[in-house]
Amino acid sequence: MNNSFVIKGNICQTKNPSALDLHENGYAVCVEGVSKGVFDVLPEEYKSLSLYDYGDALIFPGMVDLHLHAPQYAFRGMCMDLELMEWLNRYTFPEEEKYESLEYANLAYGMFASAIKHSATSRCSIFATRHRYATELLMELMEQSGLVSYVGKVNMDREASEGLVEKSADISAYTTFGWINATKDKFKNTRPILTPRFIPCCTDALMEQLREIQMAYGIPVQSHLSESKGEIEFVKSLRPDNLFYGDVYNEYDLFGKNDDINTDVKTVMAHCVWSSDAEVELMRKNGVFIAHCPSSNMNLTSGIAPIRKYLDLGLNIGLGTDVAAGQSISMFRAITDAIQVSKMYFRMVDEAYKPLVFSEAFYLATKGGGAFFGKVGSFDEGYEFDAVVMDDSMLSHPQPLTLSERMERAVYLGLDEKGIVAKFVSGNKIF
Amino acid sequence: MNNSFVIKGNICQTKNPSALDLHENGYAVCVEGVSKGVFDVLPEEYKSLSLYDYGDALIFPGMVDLHLHAPQYAFRGMCMDLELMEWLNRYTFPEEEKYESLEYANLAYGMFASAIKHSATSRCSIFATRHRYATELLMELMEQSGLVSYVGKVNMDREASEGLVEKSADISAYTTFGWINATKDKFKNTRPILTPRFIPCCTDALMEQLREIQMAYGIPVQSHLSESKGEIEFVKSLRPDNLFYGDVYNEYDLFGKNDDINTDVKTVMAHCVWSSDAEVELMRKNGVFIAHCPSSNMNLTSGIAPIRKYLDLGLNIGLGTDVAAGQSISMFRAITDAIQVSKMYFRMVDEAYKPLVFSEAFYLATKGGGAFFGKVGSFDEGYEFDAVVMDDSMLSHPQPLTLSERMERAVYLGLDEKGIVAKFVSGNKIF
Repeated sequence: MNNSFVIKGNICQTKNPSALDLHENGYAVCVEGVSKGVFDVLPEEYKSLSLYDYGDALIFPGMVDLHLHAPQYAFRGMCMDLELMEWLNRYTFPEEEKYESLEYANLAYGMFASAIKHSATSRCSIFATRHRYATELLMELMEQSGLVSYVGKVNMDREASEGLVEKSADISAYTTFGWINATKDKFKNTRPILTPRFIPCCTDALMEQLREIQMAYGIPVQSHLSESKGEIEFVKSLRPDNLFYGDVYNEYDLFGKNDDINTDVKTVMAHCVWSSDAEVELMRKNGVFIAHCPSSNMNLTSGIAPIRKYLDLGLNIGLGTDVAAGQSISMFRAITDAIQVSKMYFRMVDEAYKPLVFSEAFYLATKGGGAFFGKVGSFDEGYEFDAVVMDDSMLSHPQPLTLSERMERAVYLGLDEKGIVAKFVSGNKIF
Repeated sequence: MNNSFVIKGNICQTKNPSALDLHENGYAVCVEGVSKGVFDVLPEEYKSLSLYDYGDALIFPGMVDLHLHAPQYAFRGMCMDLELMEWLNRYTFPEEEKYESLEYANLAYGMFASAIKHSATSRCSIFATRHRYATELLMELMEQSGLVSYVGKVNMDREASEGLVEKSADISAYTTFGWINATKDKFKNTRPILTPRFIPCCTDALMEQLREIQMAYGIPVQSHLSESKGEIEFVKSLRPDNLFYGDVYNEYDLFGKNDDINTDVKTVMAHCVWSSDAEVELMRKNGVFIAHCPSSNMNLTSGIAPIRKYLDLGLNIGLGTDVAAGQSISMFRAITDAIQVSKMYFRMVDEAYKPLVFSEAFYLATKGGGAFFGKVGSFDEGYEFDAVVMDDSMLSHPQPLTLSERMERAVYLGLDEKGIVAKFVSGNKIF
């Protein structure tokens, strides 16, 4: 079988958040796209499989990016002196307007898809724009990349620029129906995800229709939640009767499990920097995933999400790069940023919440976010086989290094930007 | 003359902290190693000089790294789950012990010198170890690199590992005399700087001798100050009669200007995260430079230095990478880290202190720290000619970009790690 094989190298992962699981010269076995586990000695039964011997290379599980915006890749690393609402109005909305043009979308999304294909990311949940056909084009390109992804045509029928806002809830819903019908069964690895931009951009009438669409198709949901203080105040003014921001999504049954109507809507919410206790409790109860985006939260001066608190409460958490509020699609950068901001939260805000250690942040970037995609983010038996193979020999050092040191160094020094030599997704070798 | 020439390209700098100074297809003129300014049209008088035409490349002033540790480059990006004192004892001191061996030093410092030569840094102030001969070797290698640097043999006669600590104040001082005599006139671009590690590692007897050495040779001073809370408590217990940490350096006349004895000791102190008002006031009065090291302060959970407050007070401030507490020698990373931590300080600690904007952080990395070296960090007339030329064409984009966008993007996306095509220091083309 094409997707049954063995790869050999220095295998580094986290089975759980508290410890690294390291195998020098180990064997990771893939049978029909699914992992059979990691072995220090190759079991007899797998010796007939073809072997990729990567020598002294490092092998990590593929990274899972739970939140990023494909159309914003064009202006990554720019216009960083603004906060969220001004940043949206001055840069983001004008750029997203351009995706009315399929020619522009093809050029820009082509650059994005090529970049993420060659990154350490194997799975991601992507915001496109509100444009149906450009979104379908992005889905074609993502499918060609070999990655597994959710892609969302954005819904937004208020509070955006004239050229970007959808003219009515009905038009937004109608376009969304067409898009989902056209794409839900079209691709092997690329699936639609319902994507209300955020409450400030969605009227009650639109949210009502999105509820209907979700129920009709059973597709997952992604959005933004409690990112910045100004945004939260704005939501409060728009929806004074809701108890908290997330309660609005919940009112429309777009916020995870809902026992009242016996539904389980797979939901990921980006940020959750300033979630109230009641909001956090509802996320926990409903199994909503949090996409923690530390780089973005720094750049837009949003704040620091109290991830240790969320971990202690047992919430579902992964990491997101949130390009282009985060400047980079590097998930390795997201890992180290998550550690760094947790250290700042501990030191400057509340010493009750200990900083993340390396193994915990690595876990969030793999198994943590991977759970949104099923059994993903590890070489444990039964997990989908996503792997990134890296050559770290260009990172000079005069002393012998342990494998754990090499693993940490690869992440802190951004080896995903220069050292990836091979990548597998669901057992398919994509390069 | 070899170091009289013109370079042409897209010149980007900050003349002052509040605005970018941009010249598309501009000319930067260097005469005998000194800048004559930037021109949109090349003046007649310089037309006979040789011209380096860098086409569409970006040209920045060389970066000034006010604080880093050459022997720690070996373990950059590792062992990041610890705070300062434990990190020193468990990783840093054992690694620094190895520099007793000139063979090891030659290997490790060779890697460091090569890396910093090819970075965007043109000037730096470096800690070596307490070993005289390894330090002299590092100075040889730095001289060969073409950069301008201060290099310090470290003084430390207590509170370190058995293999690293100097056996007495006298031995430390004696070694330091020998080292300064051997190196003070040996190099063109590499100079000794007096380097008491920090107060916890220096007895009163040693500090007394360092005062004498400083007075005898008039050389500048570098050290650490008020980096972490645990360290400050320790200094308080060691020196209960001093008003604050910096007061100890000041007592030994190693803390900038001292009107009482009519001296002006050029001094740079790394960190100053938790400096008291009195300490800040003394730094201001004495003209002490602060090396702000945001990456290090995050990694070691030290905290966030209130740089806006220091800027408002008119202190001398530059940036430092502080390798290996900072994981990277990239000064571009230091710029964006400085912005990000200032945003977190504003949002999470005190909204009285506005975040740094891009131009301010760029200024700190060039002219701000450059003042420690004289007229450095700009292409203004009379400044030493340090330039970094970069090709940003590998950073894909679908839309036209302004020069200001290209400048910001180059820094946020770390172009110094992949796009440098030429570099000049004091008008010498080092590659």
